[in-house]
Amino acid sequence: MVADRASADSKKRNPAIVLVEPQLGENIGAAARAMANFGLGDLRLVRPRDGWPSKKARAAASGALGIVDDARMFESTEAAIADLNFVYATTARSRDLPKEVVGPREAVAVLKARAAAGQATGILFGRERWGLTNEEIALADTIVTFPVNPAFASLNMAQAVLLVCYEWLSAGLDGKLPTRVAVPEIDVTPARKAHLLGLIRHLEEALEPTGYFRTADMKPTMVQNLRAVLQRAGFTKDEIDVLHGVVAALERQRERRRGDTADG
Amino acid sequence: MVADRASADSKKRNPAIVLVEPQLGENIGAAARAMANFGLGDLRLVRPRDGWPSKKARAAASGALGIVDDARMFESTEAAIADLNFVYATTARSRDLPKEVVGPREAVAVLKARAAAGQATGILFGRERWGLTNEEIALADTIVTFPVNPAFASLNMAQAVLLVCYEWLSAGLDGKLPTRVAVPEIDVTPARKAHLLGLIRHLEEALEPTGYFRTADMKPTMVQNLRAVLQRAGFTKDEIDVLHGVVAALERQRERRRGDTADG
Repeated sequence: MVADRASADSKKRNPAIVLVEPQLGENIGAAARAMANFGLGDLRLVRPRDGWPSKKARAAASGALGIVDDARMFESTEAAIADLNFVYATTARSRDLPKEVVGPREAVAVLKARAAAGQATGILFGRERWGLTNEEIALADTIVTFPVNPAFASLNMAQAVLLVCYEWLSAGLDGKLPTRVAVPEIDVTPARKAHLLGLIRHLEEALEPTGYFRTADMKPTMVQNLRAVLQRAGFTKDEIDVLHGVVAALERQRERRRGDTADG
Repeated sequence: MVADRASADSKKRNPAIVLVEPQLGENIGAAARAMANFGLGDLRLVRPRDGWPSKKARAAASGALGIVDDARMFESTEAAIADLNFVYATTARSRDLPKEVVGPREAVAVLKARAAAGQATGILFGRERWGLTNEEIALADTIVTFPVNPAFASLNMAQAVLLVCYEWLSAGLDGKLPTRVAVPEIDVTPARKAHLLGLIRHLEEALEPTGYFRTADMKPTMVQNLRAVLQRAGFTKDEIDVLHGVVAALERQRERRRGDTADG
């Protein structure tokens, strides 16, 4: 079927997330949800403790049901990674193993390069309580570990999946945000100086009759001060228009009061 | 006490995590756990829905009890950020707001630079179900959003906290200075939010009797507009003092005129 082929292609491009003996359905669902958020889709489970399918996994997936329902079951970690060319194992602590250890960002850079070269890749995540065995880690090519506070290292499995998936999507964006989060085109171009000077003049005229510029001697310094404040703000033309409106309103009020006095 | 001093210092350096009306204790605990993993400690809660303290939060913190127990409660978002110089708001969707939008990595680079300059910073996270209101977002300087798959964008609050905290620690490990981010000089530190909010209130009061806010219906939008203009300017405390003086002068004039009328 066409859909299957497309899905197989996408599974080939993106790394497989392999959960080894996950204990709680909730965590499997949370991992699926993390995957969906960042565009991954190939979920593989090795002997989930509480059986499969899992209602709790489906509930926790929060809409990422397709990933949960398409998850593939394996009897062994070896079988789960049999079709992959390159595999990372995630660990919380350093192990005394003759393997390279990298952070998630570095790992994703490697995975991207290998995927681009047509390789099928995957990442192993261990049990919630005690991670992967040394034998399972030995099946992987390299170890990924997470930069955490040594005084409190307690990432759970779904959080570790989230971080890897997040790095995967981030690496593809080169710092750009994906299109759904359309960045509103805000023009924050500072207004031409003529507009800024117009505002300063307006403010100066409004302040003149208020006694703000105590003495004629002090006025130049005070105007310069105001100018510095408004200049540094880097107001746009639109923002300057808003401020003209504010000053005009405060002035008008004065005019109106003056009018009241004249009429009264 | 030495511990308290150290903790106060670390609170100054690291951004505050501000959860606005979090709904579930579990999620507050998960956020605290994420913070602990990546070395953050300043947790602030605005009106948690199910009350406080929360047994569920403590259970989900998984050892990060200190952060949960030290969390500070606030009656409003304004109060929660009053002592901060620079604040990010996290959003899932793009909003039609005149604010810059950045990804978490960029946001963390800015936070690092500002923290290095001695500024107190923070990040707002919204309710699980519907995030932050536009009014709450308007209180922040800039928006952070997450690079997610447009077809499935469903990060929960604790996951968003995790990603920001992860970037925070990762950025610290790079050892490289974020050269792309202009490090603000110390003398242009944006004022604490309490000062900015004070100026906005002052201006609002001064404008109220002038008819600037044509109708009661239009007022909230117009106030938000003004707030956006003043917020984006990034005024320092000294600059805000100058502007208070300007507004007070324009107001005084009105009072004097009023006095004239009474006398006349």
